[in-house]
Amino acid sequence: MAWNTNLRWRLPLACLLLQVAMVVLFGVFARYDFEADAHWWAGKRHGNVSSDLENEFYYRYPSFQDVHVMVFVGFGFLMTFLQRYGFGAVGFNFLLAAFGIQWALLMQGWLHHLEDRHINLGVENLINADFCVASVCVAFGAVLGKVSPIQLLIMTLFQVTLFSVNEFILLDLLQVKDAGGSMTIHTFGAYFGLTVTRILYRRNLEQSKERQSSVYHSDLFAMIGTLFLWMYWPSFNSAISYHGDSQHRAVINTYCSLAACVLTSVAMSSALHKKGKLDMVHIQNATLAGGVAVGTAAELMLMPYGALIVGFICGLVSTLGFVYLTPFLESRLQIQDTCGIHNLHGLPGIIGGIVGAVTAACASPEAYGLEGLVHSFDFQGFKEGWTPRTQGKFQVYGLLVTLAMALMGGIVMGFILRLPFWGQAADENCFEDDIYWEIPEEKSTIYIHEDPTFKPSTSSVTSVPMASSMPVASLVP
Amino acid sequence: MAWNTNLRWRLPLACLLLQVAMVVLFGVFARYDFEADAHWWAGKRHGNVSSDLENEFYYRYPSFQDVHVMVFVGFGFLMTFLQRYGFGAVGFNFLLAAFGIQWALLMQGWLHHLEDRHINLGVENLINADFCVASVCVAFGAVLGKVSPIQLLIMTLFQVTLFSVNEFILLDLLQVKDAGGSMTIHTFGAYFGLTVTRILYRRNLEQSKERQSSVYHSDLFAMIGTLFLWMYWPSFNSAISYHGDSQHRAVINTYCSLAACVLTSVAMSSALHKKGKLDMVHIQNATLAGGVAVGTAAELMLMPYGALIVGFICGLVSTLGFVYLTPFLESRLQIQDTCGIHNLHGLPGIIGGIVGAVTAACASPEAYGLEGLVHSFDFQGFKEGWTPRTQGKFQVYGLLVTLAMALMGGIVMGFILRLPFWGQAADENCFEDDIYWEIPEEKSTIYIHEDPTFKPSTSSVTSVPMASSMPVASLVP
Amino acid sequence: MAWNTNLRWRLPLACLLLQVAMVVLFGVFARYDFEADAHWWAGKRHGNVSSDLENEFYYRYPSFQDVHVMVFVGFGFLMTFLQRYGFGAVGFNFLLAAFGIQWALLMQGWLHHLEDRHINLGVENLINADFCVASVCVAFGAVLGKVSPIQLLIMTLFQVTLFSVNEFILLDLLQVKDAGGSMTIHTFGAYFGLTVTRILYRRNLEQSKERQSSVYHSDLFAMIGTLFLWMYWPSFNSAISYHGDSQHRAVINTYCSLAACVLTSVAMSSALHKKGKLDMVHIQNATLAGGVAVGTAAELMLMPYGALIVGFICGLVSTLGFVYLTPFLESRLQIQDTCGIHNLHGLPGIIGGIVGAVTAACASPEAYGLEGLVHSFDFQGFKEGWTPRTQGKFQVYGLLVTLAMALMGGIVMGFILRLPFWGQAADENCFEDDIYWEIPEEKSTIYIHEDPTFKPSTSSVTSVPMASSMPVASLVP
Repeated sequence: MAWNTNLRWRLPLACLLLQVAMVVLFGVFARYDFEADAHWWAGKRHGNVSSDLENEFYYRYPSFQDVHVMVFVGFGFLMTFLQRYGFGAVGFNFLLAAFGIQWALLMQGWLHHLEDRHINLGVENLINADFCVASVCVAFGAVLGKVSPIQLLIMTLFQVTLFSVNEFILLDLLQVKDAGGSMTIHTFGAYFGLTVTRILYRRNLEQSKERQSSVYHSDLFAMIGTLFLWMYWPSFNSAISYHGDSQHRAVINTYCSLAACVLTSVAMSSALHKKGKLDMVHIQNATLAGGVAVGTAAELMLMPYGALIVGFICGLVSTLGFVYLTPFLESRLQIQDTCGIHNLHGLPGIIGGIVGAVTAACASPEAYGLEGLVHSFDFQGFKEGWTPRTQGKFQVYGLLVTLAMALMGGIVMGFILRLPFWGQAADENCFEDDIYWEIPEEKSTIYIHEDPTFKPSTSSVTSVPMASSMPVASLVP
Repeated sequence: MAWNTNLRWRLPLACLLLQVAMVVLFGVFARYDFEADAHWWAGKRHGNVSSDLENEFYYRYPSFQDVHVMVFVGFGFLMTFLQRYGFGAVGFNFLLAAFGIQWALLMQGWLHHLEDRHINLGVENLINADFCVASVCVAFGAVLGKVSPIQLLIMTLFQVTLFSVNEFILLDLLQVKDAGGSMTIHTFGAYFGLTVTRILYRRNLEQSKERQSSVYHSDLFAMIGTLFLWMYWPSFNSAISYHGDSQHRAVINTYCSLAACVLTSVAMSSALHKKGKLDMVHIQNATLAGGVAVGTAAELMLMPYGALIVGFICGLVSTLGFVYLTPFLESRLQIQDTCGIHNLHGLPGIIGGIVGAVTAACASPEAYGLEGLVHSFDFQGFKEGWTPRTQGKFQVYGLLVTLAMALMGGIVMGFILRLPFWGQAADENCFEDDIYWEIPEEKSTIYIHEDPTFKPSTSSVTSVPMASSMPVASLVP
Repeated sequence: MAWNTNLRWRLPLACLLLQVAMVVLFGVFARYDFEADAHWWAGKRHGNVSSDLENEFYYRYPSFQDVHVMVFVGFGFLMTFLQRYGFGAVGFNFLLAAFGIQWALLMQGWLHHLEDRHINLGVENLINADFCVASVCVAFGAVLGKVSPIQLLIMTLFQVTLFSVNEFILLDLLQVKDAGGSMTIHTFGAYFGLTVTRILYRRNLEQSKERQSSVYHSDLFAMIGTLFLWMYWPSFNSAISYHGDSQHRAVINTYCSLAACVLTSVAMSSALHKKGKLDMVHIQNATLAGGVAVGTAAELMLMPYGALIVGFICGLVSTLGFVYLTPFLESRLQIQDTCGIHNLHGLPGIIGGIVGAVTAACASPEAYGLEGLVHSFDFQGFKEGWTPRTQGKFQVYGLLVTLAMALMGGIVMGFILRLPFWGQAADENCFEDDIYWEIPEEKSTIYIHEDPTFKPSTSSVTSVPMASSMPVASLVP
């Protein structure tokens, strides 16, 4: 396989074409939400709003910024653990997310917020666009190091579209609750990405095996990603919940679940190592599974101990997945999952969907208060006659629809990305920044002590280009 | 000393046991605060709350997230300065904080918030739990690199308990003001940690001296920690102050104090070096002392120039401490303080306590307004007859109680941690991640120029495992 | 040129002197704003304020913290891309910003907020001080690696002063709108810095050429800076806009512009490389140009597609600048612009000023509503008779004044900094931390396979002090 990885005209064209399309479509469709429009002030003066603070901006903006950090720094740095793919991890994540949020604003706008032929943008749209892109970042984790930036842009275009449709089916048609996106974001993103990577199976990937591990400092960079994801996850799960108690409760539940998840991840990591040592991969990933798994139920009356139990289980399951399931998936099912997203987003996402369904089905007027129950689940208007049990049933339908959409979409996407002209790297060049990035030459001058019995004809000072291992390797006789 | 550092069964058991205990205790005690409960919405509708924004969540959540970042990224990365203990610094800090916040929610709940046999969790509890854990992170700095994760979990369990009792004595019994925790968090954490490290004195620690320094990039990682602590410290000191002017003022005071502290730290660092060079240790640590030292007084009418003076002095004191006091403590008092917490949290904490006492004692109706004075110091109900002077006196009592509790607690803890079966490393293996972590092998292929007079029998390409210096050392003849 | 770079007495004296001056001036002038004063609570009780939340603190504090992160982590880490100047980048940025915010509080206070001989500090002052310092950080980018910390302190003192005067002329005299500071912050900072570096031209800078590039991990550190700047830029441009719709709109516009900018930067970066590879310099810098260029217009009714177009253009212009303009400036105009601030802040700043002028001139009552128009541009009182066209005209005047002030100020500053006793490094020692910092010695023990034909008289284990390349070089015969 000798694909041409020179993207000189393909990548610029793809980027410019997509961006021009965005400009045109925004010109036709995108306007400001009333609360972001200069007319708002007049409306406020005429007594419709009691205080500037009632502007939705003040309810959501701090959460938005936290989610924004998770998408760009969180996911970006989490994937820098590979020794020679840090530029690709952070840089391509940056690229796909920057394109994805624009396209998501449009897609979600068309499906959810179209008023009078216009999409009215406000802070909630920005959060939802970031959420949608988070799902693409999840899928990126499965194909990290094996695809070209052009493939990523195409995947983003397609996945954002499908995400929005799936989200529309779940939230609008099935009336599912999923504020933290256990189903819409994590389950969808994970199984979409896993299907894509299955179809892009690379038979000879062990040729770049050596680069598929981390080095000491790349693991520390990855911890930056892990920690910002972990710390801001309460904002993620509460960002678009109802005002007041729902946001408040979502934060508490997520906080509890994540804390419990850290302890069980550490426990399993040590227990599964023959010398009881901890594995950075587990600390970087499994500790986050608790946030994924309370995504759906976080805003419900899960109770703090319920959140702890969810986190407890997910730390165990996720670490076990890294140790046993990922190698199995690779060797038997030919699913090469670079970041182990199945353990961090796939399984915990499904658990989250089920926990959400059970929590909804068990909701009682005692726990929520009668008015609280109606408010929390919108049991009015269209959903007038619904009971918690109905809600629970529909939550399960939502999970199944999500899985089906992810698998089907992933298959289509996979075959499109298998076409040979997207600039993908050969198997032996995977996980290598040098393919798509101008890499700084790293010279370290080594002084070898002079020695009378050793008379080199050339200088004894050798230049060691440490950063680019391939050219070096080729020099070796 | 040949302790067994294989934690295969001990660490998993400790983690799982503690986490199961947390689940059970949360099940029995933890409920949602009214403002995080689904009943809140009904209460709001019936006219008790004028706006969704009146939910405490919107007052405190941005500050909470900043504090959360300080505990996990701030303290975690601050301690990555050691060349071979980055995983332990970030990872163990993550572990102990994740356990500590759960236990702190319970302990502080039992002592402060027990209503009708239940602890009602809200965003303020989350902040206080993070505060409590910050105190453990401080103490961790003293023993960094010398204790096992099991010892850290035990220390966290014990220190959180004692912290909560001390906090209860200060805030509830002595009615001390300490919103930023100069006394309860920093003084307590520092002297507790120093006492523990004194009792764990390692006679032959110079055997791992080489690993007790930093390398170029580890110092940059540490600066991530420093800067997030520095930037978010205004949130730390204002997070649980009264609404409105108190929070506002605490931010301004902390901002001023920290800014001044940077300049005097730089000045002393340069002045104390024979070539006038700056020392990263001082920039990483002493610049933060100003935040510690306005912890108590930040919410009071300290005045901006007062805050500057506090920062000014602490930058000097802290840098002097690093240069003269830390070596003295180690050589004479056998206190091996890895991160120099005595200079960053110990001395500035005491200064902060005194500054707080003086500021309180000097509070006048002119400065606060009569109502403002009563409101700021709660001079009503139980404290009806108190004067600012009384308050100042009790502030001093609070400081003394804190020191006593820290010393006594540290002694008990130290002797418990000296037991030989906690998996601690031998003196020559301290500050080495390899003991508790699976470390990635770092191969760098070195090409040595071919030379006709030099005919090696084996390959001239040598593999240099740079990341693990110990096995290499053992290969050297 | 053998300047003395030992700062032992000069740096401490400069720092202490400046800090003592700050303490005295704060003592004379700085007080708390009413909303941060203990009297506020009494005012509130007497019915002047309906809710604690009406305190300005709750409107601005989250934005303030984001801006704070941009100044200290964003600019600090963005400049760590140099292989041997990471300490200087982060550390000197820390120092100058910590001094600058204090001096800016005073300067801006005297010019804008002097009431009854006092400066009343509130959260808005803190944001404006950070803004002012951001302008110094921009200028620092031009002289990075070539100036001593003393020169930076002097530059900060002078530039903050001039910034405040320029800001006063623009905002108060010319009544220009510039919430995100395209003109006052970026254009001013860039052309000031470029003029300074022109006058400090170093003829033999190619002697330290090798250190003027990055290494693999230093580029990743720089991406931390890039991403925090990129993510928090919406907060930057909205931090001091009017409450409600203005802040809301500024966020949306900045978000859109930045997203578009990423795609066009990537496109150009690939198109301009002969193998189509991406250059980290462009990803680190050009992607931010969109934030600079909507600084002025962000709070206006630019429309989302307008923001996209601005970002689109700036990504192109900025990347082209890095490839063609920076080398031209250096070779022909003798402007040595270390970080390429002309491409990131200079050109986009001017574009931002023009976009702002056009957007203002085209403002119509249809777009804003009549009341909205008056409110957005303050067309009342002093500006009673103004039309949008007048506003646009004055925006252009503002831009021209800014350019003139920056050039004149830069010339004066440059000649002051050329004096030989500020401790600057010689040309061959530029971009080298070792001059001003105590650098950790980095030993890596290399084991060279034993070989019977090669009998060294000394140990074959050579110690390679990698971190300090200069002493090594001197050992080479």
